[in-house]
Amino acid sequence: MKGLILKINCPDQHGIVAKVASYVADYAGNLVEFSQFTDDQNGKFFARVEIDTTDLSVDVDDFVKGFETLGKSLQAAWHFRHQPYKMRTAVLVTKTDHCLNEILWRTKLGEMPIEITSIIGNRDTCKSIADNAGIPFHHVDMDGEKKAEGFQKIRDLLLDQKVELTVLARFMQILPDWFCQEFGGKIINIHHSFLPAFIGANPYRQAYERGVKLIGATCHYVTSDLDAGPIIEQEVQRVQHFHSPQDLIRLGRDCERNAIARGIRYHVNDRTIIHKNRAIVFPD
Amino acid sequence: MKGLILKINCPDQHGIVAKVASYVADYAGNLVEFSQFTDDQNGKFFARVEIDTTDLSVDVDDFVKGFETLGKSLQAAWHFRHQPYKMRTAVLVTKTDHCLNEILWRTKLGEMPIEITSIIGNRDTCKSIADNAGIPFHHVDMDGEKKAEGFQKIRDLLLDQKVELTVLARFMQILPDWFCQEFGGKIINIHHSFLPAFIGANPYRQAYERGVKLIGATCHYVTSDLDAGPIIEQEVQRVQHFHSPQDLIRLGRDCERNAIARGIRYHVNDRTIIHKNRAIVFPD
Amino acid sequence: MKGLILKINCPDQHGIVAKVASYVADYAGNLVEFSQFTDDQNGKFFARVEIDTTDLSVDVDDFVKGFETLGKSLQAAWHFRHQPYKMRTAVLVTKTDHCLNEILWRTKLGEMPIEITSIIGNRDTCKSIADNAGIPFHHVDMDGEKKAEGFQKIRDLLLDQKVELTVLARFMQILPDWFCQEFGGKIINIHHSFLPAFIGANPYRQAYERGVKLIGATCHYVTSDLDAGPIIEQEVQRVQHFHSPQDLIRLGRDCERNAIARGIRYHVNDRTIIHKNRAIVFPD
Amino acid sequence: MKGLILKINCPDQHGIVAKVASYVADYAGNLVEFSQFTDDQNGKFFARVEIDTTDLSVDVDDFVKGFETLGKSLQAAWHFRHQPYKMRTAVLVTKTDHCLNEILWRTKLGEMPIEITSIIGNRDTCKSIADNAGIPFHHVDMDGEKKAEGFQKIRDLLLDQKVELTVLARFMQILPDWFCQEFGGKIINIHHSFLPAFIGANPYRQAYERGVKLIGATCHYVTSDLDAGPIIEQEVQRVQHFHSPQDLIRLGRDCERNAIARGIRYHVNDRTIIHKNRAIVFPD
Repeated sequence: MKGLILKINCPDQHGIVAKVASYVADYAGNLVEFSQFTDDQNGKFFARVEIDTTDLSVDVDDFVKGFETLGKSLQAAWHFRHQPYKMRTAVLVTKTDHCLNEILWRTKLGEMPIEITSIIGNRDTCKSIADNAGIPFHHVDMDGEKKAEGFQKIRDLLLDQKVELTVLARFMQILPDWFCQEFGGKIINIHHSFLPAFIGANPYRQAYERGVKLIGATCHYVTSDLDAGPIIEQEVQRVQHFHSPQDLIRLGRDCERNAIARGIRYHVNDRTIIHKNRAIVFPD
Repeated sequence: MKGLILKINCPDQHGIVAKVASYVADYAGNLVEFSQFTDDQNGKFFARVEIDTTDLSVDVDDFVKGFETLGKSLQAAWHFRHQPYKMRTAVLVTKTDHCLNEILWRTKLGEMPIEITSIIGNRDTCKSIADNAGIPFHHVDMDGEKKAEGFQKIRDLLLDQKVELTVLARFMQILPDWFCQEFGGKIINIHHSFLPAFIGANPYRQAYERGVKLIGATCHYVTSDLDAGPIIEQEVQRVQHFHSPQDLIRLGRDCERNAIARGIRYHVNDRTIIHKNRAIVFPD
Repeated sequence: MKGLILKINCPDQHGIVAKVASYVADYAGNLVEFSQFTDDQNGKFFARVEIDTTDLSVDVDDFVKGFETLGKSLQAAWHFRHQPYKMRTAVLVTKTDHCLNEILWRTKLGEMPIEITSIIGNRDTCKSIADNAGIPFHHVDMDGEKKAEGFQKIRDLLLDQKVELTVLARFMQILPDWFCQEFGGKIINIHHSFLPAFIGANPYRQAYERGVKLIGATCHYVTSDLDAGPIIEQEVQRVQHFHSPQDLIRLGRDCERNAIARGIRYHVNDRTIIHKNRAIVFPD
Repeated sequence: MKGLILKINCPDQHGIVAKVASYVADYAGNLVEFSQFTDDQNGKFFARVEIDTTDLSVDVDDFVKGFETLGKSLQAAWHFRHQPYKMRTAVLVTKTDHCLNEILWRTKLGEMPIEITSIIGNRDTCKSIADNAGIPFHHVDMDGEKKAEGFQKIRDLLLDQKVELTVLARFMQILPDWFCQEFGGKIINIHHSFLPAFIGANPYRQAYERGVKLIGATCHYVTSDLDAGPIIEQEVQRVQHFHSPQDLIRLGRDCERNAIARGIRYHVNDRTIIHKNRAIVFPD
């Protein structure tokens, strides 16, 4: 489809849908999908609008530009994305490769409109996977004192390659504050527990010790506050007393793969809007 | 909330959302929820619109009436429902009472805006439950030759009591064609299998024989074609080889209760639109 | 079935199954179900054995007594329960009645072999439900300074009525240490979150604030450590951004009802064995 | 672990567990896992026994051989498998590669103890995947009149390579009767629907037309009767009205991958026993 996706949020008020939809209709745009959410508790309006621009009566860029007047009058924050679009994405890894493989596989199948600019690892374990996939691999040493410098290098890579989304695919490093802030809303992590349970290290071991009957994984935006960013997607799976911590790791992998895949898909299709510490998600 | 729910469907065309939303905004209605679906394969547009009418600049009835011009111009079928609303509902039962109990319980809790006009049974097993709940119980004999007459009696009861929705809560009788047609789109059934698997009698026994690893229940609109009407909701549950047919009945009850409760809730909140043999459902 | 259920745990060693099964076979008992778990990490063996005693060659009491020699030689802790059996159960409530209703309903259907000795409430909201069900209701005032005395009264009731299982069916009071210890392993609670997430008060509000995409409920044994006892069963349900805290309460009820029902069923059928802070559960 | 897995089934009778467990104990074998199921309806006993043979007092082969006397006396069918073991497995494909990829990936991770002898395709689409994985690929032409000859070639390949398990990983060919019979109980298929719903071609299209709210996949043993063999595992996923047939294919892939992976794992770990048209599965 040749088109546009509009994400918008603004203070709640009468007539928003009418105004936005009329703007689209006035220039012969076709609303393909209109998803909306009114947050009564915070007096906020959120929407995602998918527009087929095939029959548009004006130039697409003029259409986008002209929206400014309406947007401002609504005191809105908004964003247009031209379709089709492939988001430039970097994947950060350590040793574990199941999330990376899942991302590569779904990308190849066309499930996720991303272009993987590079795979960056603080170990070189995943290099062969990157090579096979024909994607540049960058090994960045982050051990001990090299950590601070390592994050600078990653930053430079992301900027050089005009990366729009950074995915932490089981990247076992805590991000420094400045990094989280510089790329705010553009870093997605998979945490291997059903957050907010089992924050921090070794969540499957924690889950085993606690004797839970369901384990899970959480895909979330990264903020300076460890494992506490807005949640995009969660997945769970039943476990029993006979499952060892190793079994939980095995079973949890399926949760992680599904949660991260859906999380990325929602993000790159502009199906998420972050508001405070929550993510509004219009699933497909 | 004082308000209106509008359900509408029409041939797909540019500007529908704009026109509908503008109509609401023009008279100072507030769109609380706007759910829309465009069926590309059939060129049809469907929407459910929840309108807060507190600040409406005209009389609500005039607002509803005035919509006619727009509706006709869109070649639409549409329906307004005043809120709050309690749908007049009859529950048909035989012996089994778990679905009936679930409906009574959720109604009492305020989960389902219905007014139960009567409980009708071809056995009187559930009479005491009806009595306890203070709801009239009608025993209609349907054995053998009395079946045809029985359905006439039920029809008369439904018409007399101005029933808007008839729920078959494990009512073990096959409805005659004329009945299905007279109350088309206004009868909801719970079938104790994951349709279209195991149509007809003894679905749990069938499921046991087939050795399935998941059992289910299906809540659907009733049509003349047995167990083949539009599906509103389905629910499943894992089973294992050691579960006997009796265990499946026990476990299946939980599926049935949840599926019928959600199905009714969606219907009475006008969250369903029937199109051909499918039900569009905007869940909450 | 006329029979026995044997629960046993002992240090892991060769030949336990052979010895236990041979003891049963030697006296013509028939093993109907044999469930076993070896905990490698702790060097412990656990089993649940269901024995049909119809053809037993000795008196059942002699059979039970005679096991002592074997049990001691295995350094085991064990327990026999005669079947059929109805466990004497007290249900503690405050205002909320959905868990209570679920327990009553499933008991009536024969899903849970319990005899409800009494319903005890620190409010009298649930009295009418108890009356309808023909079960004694005891109102125990626990407000302010009466709390300590209240727990004494409850203790006396439980002892007087020879209660074997106490179910906290949304009983909104924190139990004193001495109470937890006196009835250790015999109190089951339902917590309205997916523990260990959202310990303490208002878990649905906490879940809403955190923006989780799945909510849950946890059925667990009560220990002195609040919400930290061995978990018997957990249940989850998907939620979305548009669900308010009230919606979470509504949706969570279904999790709570299912989790508590299964938890009680497992306990009264001797399908649980507590070991340290985990519950071994052999589900049916 | 150095050990044995024993699968056994026989007419139900007193003392089976005692006899089998005593045989193991008599020769200092250690029961690591003992799973048992008594089918009352058919008067049959089934068990899977995992034995650590580290401390065995006799030679393992003698232990296995000596069991014959007991086995015969129980009128049992039984099978011992030495551990660790890698089952020689052939994967049959057409064009679709997601199930193949899943199998390769989980094998590499150590989740499935198989040795893939070859990948056989009636198209050569998956050749590059086989090449990358270092596994021989055989293209067998099965179009039109070459079909009969094609199955002969596959048979020869399976026999030459001493294949013990054949996995149909979205192999779009109906197997001839003689083939199903020759390899009875040794062919596993993944069907892309929740069987027995939507047997035959295009199940996702069928599911779309029927308007189901859950789609699924079924992993089953292949018999001469199309899509009707014993079910090992099933997986489902929620769908909504807005999901097109293409969306169902996308979402269904996740069901297929999980169901086939678990199905194979259960089979190769001897966790399945086929009885009539049902599969007894002791999951891990």
